[in-house]
Amino acid sequence: MSTRLIESFANAPKYAELFSDASLLQAMLDFEAALAQAESSAGVIPASAAEAIAKSAKAKDFDVEELASRGLRAGTLSIPLVKALTERLRAVDKESARFVHWGATSQDVSDTAMVLLLRRARVALAEDAARLQAALRRASDEHANTVMLGRTLLQAGPPITLGLKIAGWFGELRRSWARLDEDLGDVAILQFGGAVGTLASLGDKALPVATGLAKQLGLALPAGPWHAHRDRLAAVVCSCGIYAGALAKMAKDVSLLMQSEVGELFEPGGDGRGGSSTMPQKRNPIACALALGAGNRVPGYVASFLSGMPQEHERGIGGLQAEAATIARTIEDTGLALVSMSEVAEGFSVDDGRMKRNIASTRGMIFAERAMMKIGAQLGRDSAHTLIEQAVRRAEQQGVSLGEALNALPQVTAILSAQEIHELADPGSYLGAAEAFRKRLLASEE
Amino acid sequence: MSTRLIESFANAPKYAELFSDASLLQAMLDFEAALAQAESSAGVIPASAAEAIAKSAKAKDFDVEELASRGLRAGTLSIPLVKALTERLRAVDKESARFVHWGATSQDVSDTAMVLLLRRARVALAEDAARLQAALRRASDEHANTVMLGRTLLQAGPPITLGLKIAGWFGELRRSWARLDEDLGDVAILQFGGAVGTLASLGDKALPVATGLAKQLGLALPAGPWHAHRDRLAAVVCSCGIYAGALAKMAKDVSLLMQSEVGELFEPGGDGRGGSSTMPQKRNPIACALALGAGNRVPGYVASFLSGMPQEHERGIGGLQAEAATIARTIEDTGLALVSMSEVAEGFSVDDGRMKRNIASTRGMIFAERAMMKIGAQLGRDSAHTLIEQAVRRAEQQGVSLGEALNALPQVTAILSAQEIHELADPGSYLGAAEAFRKRLLASEE
Amino acid sequence: MSTRLIESFANAPKYAELFSDASLLQAMLDFEAALAQAESSAGVIPASAAEAIAKSAKAKDFDVEELASRGLRAGTLSIPLVKALTERLRAVDKESARFVHWGATSQDVSDTAMVLLLRRARVALAEDAARLQAALRRASDEHANTVMLGRTLLQAGPPITLGLKIAGWFGELRRSWARLDEDLGDVAILQFGGAVGTLASLGDKALPVATGLAKQLGLALPAGPWHAHRDRLAAVVCSCGIYAGALAKMAKDVSLLMQSEVGELFEPGGDGRGGSSTMPQKRNPIACALALGAGNRVPGYVASFLSGMPQEHERGIGGLQAEAATIARTIEDTGLALVSMSEVAEGFSVDDGRMKRNIASTRGMIFAERAMMKIGAQLGRDSAHTLIEQAVRRAEQQGVSLGEALNALPQVTAILSAQEIHELADPGSYLGAAEAFRKRLLASEE
Amino acid sequence: MSTRLIESFANAPKYAELFSDASLLQAMLDFEAALAQAESSAGVIPASAAEAIAKSAKAKDFDVEELASRGLRAGTLSIPLVKALTERLRAVDKESARFVHWGATSQDVSDTAMVLLLRRARVALAEDAARLQAALRRASDEHANTVMLGRTLLQAGPPITLGLKIAGWFGELRRSWARLDEDLGDVAILQFGGAVGTLASLGDKALPVATGLAKQLGLALPAGPWHAHRDRLAAVVCSCGIYAGALAKMAKDVSLLMQSEVGELFEPGGDGRGGSSTMPQKRNPIACALALGAGNRVPGYVASFLSGMPQEHERGIGGLQAEAATIARTIEDTGLALVSMSEVAEGFSVDDGRMKRNIASTRGMIFAERAMMKIGAQLGRDSAHTLIEQAVRRAEQQGVSLGEALNALPQVTAILSAQEIHELADPGSYLGAAEAFRKRLLASEE
Repeated sequence: MSTRLIESFANAPKYAELFSDASLLQAMLDFEAALAQAESSAGVIPASAAEAIAKSAKAKDFDVEELASRGLRAGTLSIPLVKALTERLRAVDKESARFVHWGATSQDVSDTAMVLLLRRARVALAEDAARLQAALRRASDEHANTVMLGRTLLQAGPPITLGLKIAGWFGELRRSWARLDEDLGDVAILQFGGAVGTLASLGDKALPVATGLAKQLGLALPAGPWHAHRDRLAAVVCSCGIYAGALAKMAKDVSLLMQSEVGELFEPGGDGRGGSSTMPQKRNPIACALALGAGNRVPGYVASFLSGMPQEHERGIGGLQAEAATIARTIEDTGLALVSMSEVAEGFSVDDGRMKRNIASTRGMIFAERAMMKIGAQLGRDSAHTLIEQAVRRAEQQGVSLGEALNALPQVTAILSAQEIHELADPGSYLGAAEAFRKRLLASEE
Repeated sequence: MSTRLIESFANAPKYAELFSDASLLQAMLDFEAALAQAESSAGVIPASAAEAIAKSAKAKDFDVEELASRGLRAGTLSIPLVKALTERLRAVDKESARFVHWGATSQDVSDTAMVLLLRRARVALAEDAARLQAALRRASDEHANTVMLGRTLLQAGPPITLGLKIAGWFGELRRSWARLDEDLGDVAILQFGGAVGTLASLGDKALPVATGLAKQLGLALPAGPWHAHRDRLAAVVCSCGIYAGALAKMAKDVSLLMQSEVGELFEPGGDGRGGSSTMPQKRNPIACALALGAGNRVPGYVASFLSGMPQEHERGIGGLQAEAATIARTIEDTGLALVSMSEVAEGFSVDDGRMKRNIASTRGMIFAERAMMKIGAQLGRDSAHTLIEQAVRRAEQQGVSLGEALNALPQVTAILSAQEIHELADPGSYLGAAEAFRKRLLASEE
Repeated sequence: MSTRLIESFANAPKYAELFSDASLLQAMLDFEAALAQAESSAGVIPASAAEAIAKSAKAKDFDVEELASRGLRAGTLSIPLVKALTERLRAVDKESARFVHWGATSQDVSDTAMVLLLRRARVALAEDAARLQAALRRASDEHANTVMLGRTLLQAGPPITLGLKIAGWFGELRRSWARLDEDLGDVAILQFGGAVGTLASLGDKALPVATGLAKQLGLALPAGPWHAHRDRLAAVVCSCGIYAGALAKMAKDVSLLMQSEVGELFEPGGDGRGGSSTMPQKRNPIACALALGAGNRVPGYVASFLSGMPQEHERGIGGLQAEAATIARTIEDTGLALVSMSEVAEGFSVDDGRMKRNIASTRGMIFAERAMMKIGAQLGRDSAHTLIEQAVRRAEQQGVSLGEALNALPQVTAILSAQEIHELADPGSYLGAAEAFRKRLLASEE
Repeated sequence: MSTRLIESFANAPKYAELFSDASLLQAMLDFEAALAQAESSAGVIPASAAEAIAKSAKAKDFDVEELASRGLRAGTLSIPLVKALTERLRAVDKESARFVHWGATSQDVSDTAMVLLLRRARVALAEDAARLQAALRRASDEHANTVMLGRTLLQAGPPITLGLKIAGWFGELRRSWARLDEDLGDVAILQFGGAVGTLASLGDKALPVATGLAKQLGLALPAGPWHAHRDRLAAVVCSCGIYAGALAKMAKDVSLLMQSEVGELFEPGGDGRGGSSTMPQKRNPIACALALGAGNRVPGYVASFLSGMPQEHERGIGGLQAEAATIARTIEDTGLALVSMSEVAEGFSVDDGRMKRNIASTRGMIFAERAMMKIGAQLGRDSAHTLIEQAVRRAEQQGVSLGEALNALPQVTAILSAQEIHELADPGSYLGAAEAFRKRLLASEE
């Protein structure tokens, strides 16, 4: 299993798999095999050595426990892994054993392995992001005309459509995913610099080997080694922070809409989800809770990563050793939030009757601005404001609707008919540019 | 003055100015004037009102103390400012006073004002970023052949060139600035949605007014209002985090090179910089300290901003109110780090004699890898490794150089001449692809 | 004014005052005056010098702008301030000018000044904490029997009392304040170590002067200087983080209770608080929003402060220079949250009718557990669970209450009378240990 | 194995064990067994049920994979665990199965289990903290007279003793541990409140059961349930942040002292520690790197935890679900830093010859303050300052020592003999209160 129980709510199986021991080891061994291949092609080491190394570079043959324990002493997994690989080779081909890891440094292996794991993470995330976006687009279209309360500072306001609300989530999620996707693309580069980033031990074969190695691994060749320049990884971590924040925003809204007292929209239940051990009637917003939890943790990882950027000279101390766990956890938490909200987007249920009742229960108060502007157009905004305040106060005191209160004010009835006053409280005709904005958000390539 | 004494090391005058009270107020008033103008053009309010509003929208006429104190009660500066503007107008033109802020909501004003301030911040940062990059490019060219120790985990390693080290800073700083610059460009968009983001009170004039208002302010029109979708601001804050991290990396390196025991490169002194109140001989790395201090604070702002992203429904509570100070401080700290390191880049002095002496004082030990690979090419890597370890141990015990120790080993002298052994310790011929990487880093458009 | 407009929601006037330029300067000058006095008493400098220095150490006589600008160059305010003080003295008493700052280092001044400002902060915070606790205690007593819904994961649950809810806030706030108060007490210590923390320049007068200086300032004398050991300041910052978190918890609950759809408890309005620029009927939770905003920012400060703790050797670079602003902002944000919630605690209004209606609107569903345990005691928990699930499903489908559904199940009516079923939905008799816990929380000295 | 390879540098085996799946499950089952026992003693459930439950509550009998996967759906491990326990019982004793988890809620189990794990963490940490403190105390005593450079802002300053430097670490580490230890003590309390914190389903047996349960588990009984009041856990997390910061401070100093160019103090090597894959001569500060890495990550966890404190109503959503992983990781990283620095403290080696040479290589410049105060006592500080500046400049230009430069100034030689000038550069006689402070730091009970 890839996740400890204590971290159950920090990981979804699909994402935990990405950074499993087997994945990591194989990525490191893939680097060693590709390096040998590139060096053989450049005439630096014999072809037979490259073949032998490739043959021995199988993760399943290595002892994870021992690597972990030696890695902790060495401050890097690369040293014990290279040693173990060399020993394996020595047993079968002493000559080839000499050429393992030729010219590379520990961080070349660990950084490139991380890059390879992030490439797989990108595929996994892209899949779920596409699912989420498709589901939200469908739901927004479906609910283009579903009218509900707008809410600001947790107070009821004029109406919006559920379609617009969903399109707002969609817009932010699309932009944030595009950003993360691009950053994951930018980090798909080779790390290869040798001891201090000059590849001095390879002499004039340095660039040919680097070029070949990058090609072998399907990675781009950066302008130079980046052992102590972590901006591209920082960008990935930050963009996860933004994406997780956008997912948490959606989760926050859904969880608020699921409140017993609101009851307008629900994440899907079923299959062990959302029950309570003591309250059989409850339907808890668990997917949202997981996404909100992830959204709580990721900003801390971002701060840690950024704090660790000032790494000393050609290879740092502390900042560097702190990174791998932080990156993995950032991707995992982001992935958990993403699958959780994809599940929500694909399966939520809407209670549009409740939406209407919730609008009705404001007794027209949310249309005060509308009334004010309507009256203001004739009486002036000032007088209108005073009149409306009067009406609102009366409606609250008497428990009547704003419309009834307005009907009781002669200055109002002098300019508005009963029908006009009645229509002030029709939510469907007070949606402004909601549909235009909704379409723009779904269409926009911004 | 724009900065409190207690925050002296969190702000440089140039950047403090950007978010001064006058700047902020004028940006808010610019929104109100432009809104009136756009609404007048769209036939929503009279042209005379637009003119009158524009005339009254001068920051200097408003009472900052009172606005601050009322703003704290209202939870937004927009409410008291709109009220004060309306009152100013009422005194001179009662008719026009009715049309102040017509159809807009508080957050339309405050967000658009922030966007306008960030546009100015972009200009200021771009100026200093260009200065920094130009200075680093010059310095890297100048020191293309200045050989110095490479250092990993704070230990001496094989040589690099100062030119390559500087090019490494340059590369990360250029990439990070490009990212921040782009994010500042993306956020140069209008915020305009009215009470709940539908602009309902403007009816079918909503989009024409929005379009005109954006044009008036020189901002792009986004697909829809973004009151509770803060990803673009988050991107700016994150990219400041990365840029500040890259600046702090350079500051870290310079401060380490300035150590009494290293003494290879110094930030410029002069003009009250870097003295000590008790130690007249000291030359403290103050510009670096300021950049490192900024690099310490920004990650915390980033975490706060990201944590605040899940804002409730159409306009949030808490997350929203927390942002303005966080954004301003992020830009200010980033700006302080940037001007500090620009000053360093333009004025540092290099002690290349000390660089040579520091290389020499390793007694050739840093060339152990070189020797190993040279010998290994003939004897096999294994035997070579054993021989070199022997030589290193002997050199350490006897206090001689690695070359001397090698000369005393018959297995070594059997394959390497005294001259060849001597040349092993020549740093200038063991630089690998340093110059190639340096040129790629300076040239690259990656 | 002490706060910039852009930081309006990050500071309350009372707390901004604590760290004003005048406060800071005077605290620094108080150190210099007390130092001279202690050195005069110990026979290190002439009594006349101590008198002259004391006379010149008046904040109002110094040019803040110039100090700020020189401080930024020097990396510390102490250097230009000591210089300015020396110059002022030289003009009147050349002999005494020699003895300004005798034996001290910059950080002795700046750290001790911070400690003096924190002492004042402690008084201010204690005052508001006492106000808050008193108000909560009163309110908890008043509402010992006010029954309301308990809510978990934002879903309605069995009833609690408002008195217990308030006592829960009270308990956490009392514990957190006690912790912060203690940490503020622990940091009330002198900083005095000279250049590297040995006070070498004072020879055998070192400890007598330190002792006298501490006494003079009313501070404790720590075991040794703590220039690079920031744990006590870190403790203050962390405890502010916890206190701000506890305040934000209360703010979160109040803001959720103020929702239009819940409407059970309201922060006080009045005096420009909580209105909307576009929606005259709104009553926004502004005090809560400010507290939540502060609660959003403080964790970021905490992370920054902790990241900066590993300060180099006897006095650090970067971490040190980053602190002052962070500490001030932490106190200010905590203070803002505290005054906001004190205002809420002293003035909230309760709608107990709405509380009852909200309980009623669950149609008894929240008593499912109660019914299950009652029936389970006779039929076994398993059978009971099955029966209750049946009843809940039926109640939901038919829109009837749980009681009605239970009445329709013969297996239930066989063991419970109609009266007993009716009483299952009486919230006042299902409060368990609520009152006992409430009293313990108010009484407890834990 | 308890730690994934990707998290190798975020965990030490001893601490990973604390939060292993077996530990966590058993702690949860211990709660269930103790609950049944307490309820049986209070006459709430039959004694036979309590016995049967205790017999079935063995972690090894449960399927971890399945619990993890169901837990992720339920949003809590408690629900599937209680279900699995009930099923196990049902197979053997249907009657007793009814009484599993009687009256408790999910969070009662998970919180109390966390508390039980933290109790074990306290023991583990206390052991290592004692080791560290003992080693530092010994080392400080041993090096009470080992003179070395003091360093501020990474620049050489007047001398200190290594004993004082170590005592400085000791003082901060002792204070920080005492704080963490106390907070771990404070959190050793029961969580038990049922659905909404009233224990309503237990009626008047609520307090007796709670009291018995606390006793059974060896925990204190708090004033009331604390489901949504996380201050005590926050205190533990914060105090880990401070302790990790203090450990990282020591690691920072050691790593700087290990620099090739400084070479004064070294962490122990041996056993795979600190080698380089490409540079056989290197001795890398790996234990320090691990402690610094931990020090980098913990502040982010602290920020996340504090951000999550405002948990909704009686039990929150998001903040709550985020905590467990954060707490475990905080303890693990703190533990890793602690064992790393204990190893360093117990085994570092000191090169006091190098310390002397490093002092000598400043050519007396670090005694400029001493000379100034000596001369100033006779000539006045002003004239002294001017003279010293002259001498420093001359010494730098001519590459001579400060003593030689002073000897060449007639104004100096008029008042100081050659012997007196010579003695100015004797570090051993310019240590001020170093030894007094050292003893106070070791002795102090503050």
